Amino acid sequence: MSPKPSFVTAKEFDEIFQSVCNWGRWGEDDEKGTLNYIKYEHIKKAASLVKSGRTVSLAIPINKVAGPDNPHPAIHYLTHIHDIDIPQGEPHFAMDFLGSECHGDCHTHVDALCHVSYKGKLYNDKSISTVTSHGPKLMDITAFAHGIVGRGVLLDIPRLRKVRWLEPGETVTREELEEAEQAQGVRLGEGDIFLFRTGHHRRRLELGPWNNEYEGEGKAGLHVDTIPLLHERKVAVFLPDGDGETVPCNVEGMAYPIHALQITAMGMVCADSLQFEELVPVCEEEKRWEFMVIATPLRLPGGTGSLFNPIAIF
Amino acid sequence: MSPKPSFVTAKEFDEIFQSVCNWGRWGEDDEKGTLNYIKYEHIKKAASLVKSGRTVSLAIPINKVAGPDNPHPAIHYLTHIHDIDIPQGEPHFAMDFLGSECHGDCHTHVDALCHVSYKGKLYNDKSISTVTSHGPKLMDITAFAHGIVGRGVLLDIPRLRKVRWLEPGETVTREELEEAEQAQGVRLGEGDIFLFRTGHHRRRLELGPWNNEYEGEGKAGLHVDTIPLLHERKVAVFLPDGDGETVPCNVEGMAYPIHALQITAMGMVCADSLQFEELVPVCEEEKRWEFMVIATPLRLPGGTGSLFNPIAIF
Amino acid sequence: MSPKPSFVTAKEFDEIFQSVCNWGRWGEDDEKGTLNYIKYEHIKKAASLVKSGRTVSLAIPINKVAGPDNPHPAIHYLTHIHDIDIPQGEPHFAMDFLGSECHGDCHTHVDALCHVSYKGKLYNDKSISTVTSHGPKLMDITAFAHGIVGRGVLLDIPRLRKVRWLEPGETVTREELEEAEQAQGVRLGEGDIFLFRTGHHRRRLELGPWNNEYEGEGKAGLHVDTIPLLHERKVAVFLPDGDGETVPCNVEGMAYPIHALQITAMGMVCADSLQFEELVPVCEEEKRWEFMVIATPLRLPGGTGSLFNPIAIF
Amino acid sequence: MSPKPSFVTAKEFDEIFQSVCNWGRWGEDDEKGTLNYIKYEHIKKAASLVKSGRTVSLAIPINKVAGPDNPHPAIHYLTHIHDIDIPQGEPHFAMDFLGSECHGDCHTHVDALCHVSYKGKLYNDKSISTVTSHGPKLMDITAFAHGIVGRGVLLDIPRLRKVRWLEPGETVTREELEEAEQAQGVRLGEGDIFLFRTGHHRRRLELGPWNNEYEGEGKAGLHVDTIPLLHERKVAVFLPDGDGETVPCNVEGMAYPIHALQITAMGMVCADSLQFEELVPVCEEEKRWEFMVIATPLRLPGGTGSLFNPIAIF
Repeated sequence: MSPKPSFVTAKEFDEIFQSVCNWGRWGEDDEKGTLNYIKYEHIKKAASLVKSGRTVSLAIPINKVAGPDNPHPAIHYLTHIHDIDIPQGEPHFAMDFLGSECHGDCHTHVDALCHVSYKGKLYNDKSISTVTSHGPKLMDITAFAHGIVGRGVLLDIPRLRKVRWLEPGETVTREELEEAEQAQGVRLGEGDIFLFRTGHHRRRLELGPWNNEYEGEGKAGLHVDTIPLLHERKVAVFLPDGDGETVPCNVEGMAYPIHALQITAMGMVCADSLQFEELVPVCEEEKRWEFMVIATPLRLPGGTGSLFNPIAIF
Repeated sequence: MSPKPSFVTAKEFDEIFQSVCNWGRWGEDDEKGTLNYIKYEHIKKAASLVKSGRTVSLAIPINKVAGPDNPHPAIHYLTHIHDIDIPQGEPHFAMDFLGSECHGDCHTHVDALCHVSYKGKLYNDKSISTVTSHGPKLMDITAFAHGIVGRGVLLDIPRLRKVRWLEPGETVTREELEEAEQAQGVRLGEGDIFLFRTGHHRRRLELGPWNNEYEGEGKAGLHVDTIPLLHERKVAVFLPDGDGETVPCNVEGMAYPIHALQITAMGMVCADSLQFEELVPVCEEEKRWEFMVIATPLRLPGGTGSLFNPIAIF
Repeated sequence: MSPKPSFVTAKEFDEIFQSVCNWGRWGEDDEKGTLNYIKYEHIKKAASLVKSGRTVSLAIPINKVAGPDNPHPAIHYLTHIHDIDIPQGEPHFAMDFLGSECHGDCHTHVDALCHVSYKGKLYNDKSISTVTSHGPKLMDITAFAHGIVGRGVLLDIPRLRKVRWLEPGETVTREELEEAEQAQGVRLGEGDIFLFRTGHHRRRLELGPWNNEYEGEGKAGLHVDTIPLLHERKVAVFLPDGDGETVPCNVEGMAYPIHALQITAMGMVCADSLQFEELVPVCEEEKRWEFMVIATPLRLPGGTGSLFNPIAIF
Repeated sequence: MSPKPSFVTAKEFDEIFQSVCNWGRWGEDDEKGTLNYIKYEHIKKAASLVKSGRTVSLAIPINKVAGPDNPHPAIHYLTHIHDIDIPQGEPHFAMDFLGSECHGDCHTHVDALCHVSYKGKLYNDKSISTVTSHGPKLMDITAFAHGIVGRGVLLDIPRLRKVRWLEPGETVTREELEEAEQAQGVRLGEGDIFLFRTGHHRRRLELGPWNNEYEGEGKAGLHVDTIPLLHERKVAVFLPDGDGETVPCNVEGMAYPIHALQITAMGMVCADSLQFEELVPVCEEEKRWEFMVIATPLRLPGGTGSLFNPIAIF
């Protein structure tokens, strides 16, 4: 493990915020943020990584059971079963209804750029007043409607540390990300989709759910010193297990600093609560940590995020 | 246009049902149906079709407005906007809730194999009693959790007929599908994902919604004589605008015969209510009607279907 | 019918607003508004009106069908039927889920005092900023948790006018309310529950639903000159079919002026969308238009309103 | 406390079931069950009990927080706040959406007669097949649409036992109900509304929620030997804190025997999960345990039950 990561003052945080800030980079009307890094050529290269044809889901099954990390479980009801008489004759149909919050800790989802504000501002210097109780006027999830496609690179921190998972409160620094790159023989680059593994879901599978928010036991995640690395490398998409945050964090007077840096400052396409427990054995078998990734948010006008089911293709 | 398609008697329908029936083909515990046709090699070949890197969504934006084809509109509420005080300080978050029936005519979705029964049976000779009010015990949507990936082939019937769209009640025969293949220079084959365009959504965009069910004005779709073609060719996945059905249909004493043949008899992976209005211009520009398709249902245990956002990659 | 009611200028409206304004009347922390008019003695007198023992619902059955006056129909699903195995043995249970907006035109409901603001203010001079996306901090529906009980008085305007119902756009003036009092031999007084009938629901039963909002065909309701009457008489509760508003209204530059006067200025307990079609025949048989009324909102913390089922007891 | 209550065999249970069975009593089409006991004269007498004019809610505030007794918390979202521009000008409106299961342990609700089946039968010898996934064809909650009104009688068992509440698993026998009647100077009679207090909600307020189902810690309730008493006395309505059941119960091979006897056999109007913690001090001050009760289910076609807010009037 890396030496104990340093504490970051509010002033230092603001300096990092400024240093990674992409406001205006893609024009004042931009709603795509770092998805702009992914050019057609990146998608072609990503497709060229498909060598075996295996596909792996990166999503947690939708969780309908309340628990410490799932205070608002999804509601899912069969609305018809095959007992319903059909006036026109055969066939018969079973149908259902699904309702869910779009940002639950137990539901693999992607964030829209309007999801996070910092000091009254959204990404690209837009005001929080653009998000009313009727929905966001800008930067909703449909900005990613045509899919998030590119080269996925998994950095597997428990593998590096030779542990089953990182414990709540542990943090991963820039130095450690670079060590993981070396250990795995990969390097994050422009337009990449970064899969960041702490083993959050492995721990949940084995020890059960826990309250990983501030009022609870916390979670493992990134140190803020990693964000400039992602910025320099022009990483396009961030797919963590957990949500990338270290809780409690190492920044003075803040919670969830990673969200503010990634989404508000960088306009980064970020997801939450993936699971890599089916992916890891495939990576080990295939002996590679890069693959094609496709992730398609629901096309929800006004959505601040979306449940989704990203997949890796080898 | 083809000559007037023939009416099909109940006896003839049952003969078609038997002739395309895949019950037992992949074992008595199979839950994947025709997805079994897609082998790793098909996925690799599909990836090799990525030549330009363009991606196109095949989904209709989720429709929250009630109408004749949307009696149960999706419910979507902002649960927080950035006005909510965060105890721990910055940043702030906007969040939302989405609820929707999984099989609405205005919501692009995929069906689970438990969705359709015919004469008391589901695909693979399973009893309808396996679907209780608590959910299906078999063949829910998680059977497709690792994604539906393969070569997509669009057959564009309005293009063949030189019309903007097919009118409600018009039907497309096997002969006409083969004509479209010839006109476009493509051929449906084993493991393919068949995109079937009637122009349903184009008509909706231009003329507005209409009630396309039996009590309403109907819709354009397949004639049942096309189903043996799909069976012989080992087509894996069916992605129509509309839902593939001709309403009213040409089969004696039945409604929705296509669903019974495709899902109950064949175990075919079928979706509903896609739109190809963004796809068609890209096909015309690229001068090709084959591309990679990725479609990932939500990973919903017990789901009889799922909203999703399939994409084509050129 | 009364002579054509006069048009009201914005200045006149503001004068009425000031003249009926109860801000501060019951203290700066008051959350009950005109419910304060109902004293124990009024409840006792109301109970003394129970002479025959007949009870009548004043609610419309909850409407699950989308229509021009029901754009967000209630969602209602059976979550279990008796097909579900119970681990412990008998008995078995059928259960359901109900979801609904609290202020639909087709759902009999009561408004909380936080529901309506006028020029940035709620009742009792409170700021609209007390209502966040997480809910109201003040004056939610639980202010009425212990029930709305008192003497109900029905003024039946179609009866006075000898018509089946008032047509959309027709308005009822103070003079006409006083004529109805005389015709029926009743007089609204302190602490009363005023049932105001335009025949809105009768029209709906016979002619079907219509869009009664500003973008549609309108509705019949009160003229703003009636509000000073309700104020002078210290009427506590307003229970209309429709919602009391005349649409389009007779006030310069405003919509829904009745809501602003009743709820924001007066702090009046107001409901929407009752039906009196079962009540009217009982009144005629009993030859009286006063009776005990009990209305109990759901005890919903943070509710801006509540579905409910008020009843009259004769 | 009573001596240890006896265990009841399956055979004895069936004998009790037969002895209290009201099937056919009010005709084969009856959907009201024991509500038939309440005649106009009972309602008049109930109104005559209104002597002071005080009203008290008997409902628990709707619970939106998941917990061991609330696995499916209510969902409640503000759909508009006053930040939404109104095209027509002032006033502005705050609105919300409420969704809830109708039979949650933490939500005061009433059961429809279709809610409970025993050995394939509903009340009045109706088949469980009358309840499909689309809803009950018979005996839904609208059978009680015109309100449940009558004399309420509270039997306060913790008061009798001189404890703050009964502990999970403790049971109340017929003998003890009769002792409570004597101690309080009241007697349950024809058409009465029986409020049964175990102190369930008091315990929850002081010790927090617990899982009171079979897989959990249980709850205090009635012994099945009380049911013949309720039958003989022609009690019309049962309003318990908890749900009347002792868990685990004293009947061989069964769970929830009270529900089967009350609802399936007797057709009794039964509610769940009331609270009497505001009522008890009023009873003690007024020195009486009888009062008028009004309870009005939502008018929900197809409902197997309804949230409601019953009140007592003194």
